[in-house]
Amino acid sequence: MESFNSRLERIVKERNSWLCVGLDISSEQLGISDINKLKDYTFSVIDATRELAVAYKPNFAFFERWGSLGFDWLEKTITYIGDEHLTIADAKRGDIGNTAEQYAKSIFGHFGFDSVTINPYMGSDSIKPFINEPDKGVFVLCRTSNYSAKELQDRSVGGLPIYQLVADLVKNLNVLNNMGLVLGATKPNILSNIRKIAPYIPFLIPGVGVQGGELSNCLKVGNKNGVGIINISRGISFVGDKSKKAIHSAAINYVEQMREILN
Amino acid sequence: MESFNSRLERIVKERNSWLCVGLDISSEQLGISDINKLKDYTFSVIDATRELAVAYKPNFAFFERWGSLGFDWLEKTITYIGDEHLTIADAKRGDIGNTAEQYAKSIFGHFGFDSVTINPYMGSDSIKPFINEPDKGVFVLCRTSNYSAKELQDRSVGGLPIYQLVADLVKNLNVLNNMGLVLGATKPNILSNIRKIAPYIPFLIPGVGVQGGELSNCLKVGNKNGVGIINISRGISFVGDKSKKAIHSAAINYVEQMREILN
Repeated sequence: MESFNSRLERIVKERNSWLCVGLDISSEQLGISDINKLKDYTFSVIDATRELAVAYKPNFAFFERWGSLGFDWLEKTITYIGDEHLTIADAKRGDIGNTAEQYAKSIFGHFGFDSVTINPYMGSDSIKPFINEPDKGVFVLCRTSNYSAKELQDRSVGGLPIYQLVADLVKNLNVLNNMGLVLGATKPNILSNIRKIAPYIPFLIPGVGVQGGELSNCLKVGNKNGVGIINISRGISFVGDKSKKAIHSAAINYVEQMREILN
Repeated sequence: MESFNSRLERIVKERNSWLCVGLDISSEQLGISDINKLKDYTFSVIDATRELAVAYKPNFAFFERWGSLGFDWLEKTITYIGDEHLTIADAKRGDIGNTAEQYAKSIFGHFGFDSVTINPYMGSDSIKPFINEPDKGVFVLCRTSNYSAKELQDRSVGGLPIYQLVADLVKNLNVLNNMGLVLGATKPNILSNIRKIAPYIPFLIPGVGVQGGELSNCLKVGNKNGVGIINISRGISFVGDKSKKAIHSAAINYVEQMREILN
């Protein structure tokens, strides 16, 4: 069976793209409060980016906010994406063992995602239930892109920042080649240090664009001795007049930049 | 407006109880896979514990596992609980600012919970959107009850364990008197140390019973210079023949023990 990480590398190579499209479909940003219209908009973002994206990353918050109807929208979104792309559940799960097992049943079983983002604060118990199947992957939060990430993640434990302990934990748990790290684009030096200590661990890199991360450097660093995909959410979903054409243009613009940087 | 923490203290005093009933309604543990029967069972746990519980804590994993139908069950559960108890969304949220805002809209707005559990790994940005209203509260994960909690939470930063940095963060953010800490019952010494440095910050204490925590000590420590409520999930929901009578007996047994320990 092809492992999650091998599949990710293969699709990146085949599609010559490093683009993960984040689906953070914000009612406020669109000025839409009809959930059916939000669903249609989600589908149009997917349609406009199909041949360019490697992965889609629905952000659970934007669905959950609508309760059961929002999860119906999420179920339909996963079906709509289909099997040609990797799906990443941006759910940032982290809980004790028996609860983590239920979340794994939810995300991999019920919803059928290929992978999930995980918060490491509770340690390996809270990660293990997600990594039993080689074709199902996890991306563990390592050094995130937000300002206050530094409050805990950068603190030094015996000379090493906490995010580095997380990278080491993931290296040790990655027996089935199905684990990656979430590393924000806003701290290129950290990205570079983690790539040195964790070669061949896939990186999921958010924070380019609206959050201020610079594309070129993090793409190069992430893809040296490994694969690093770049998540773009607002910079694709909410561009220009929000037409399929505008969304497609933004996506192609990102992918062409990426190809120029790496090829 | 009565703050979340004041309301918690008041209800504890009025009801002479420190019991939080965890709603982790496990299909596997009940041998039930009909979601309507799981919903009925949830309602019977609530019925059997109403006059004994201070709070109900639905664990999102067990609902999410059923997708949109599971969230429909959760919506109906919140309505069924009503306004006489505190509700705690055990969702362990933690995400960047604009996403955390959506989660706050979800949990406080859409679902109408009084409070939520929060993971601190991403720092104060990820907590602030949940603490803007004094009557809505958060319980931030501090030192959890699971075995691998030690992998990160116990590591020393400049002589202080990481969980203590989290307690300090919460003390500083608790301007509206609506923040508490999650502290596992499995480490009574840690509970005691944190009570010393964080007096009057409410504790939510899971891990008594199935996870091995001992009731007496953690109840005493948690309720010295502050209030500490004890979460029981499996030890109430899945006792004996799982009848309302058995559930009620288990709950009354816990509450009577608690009264004996503290009164």
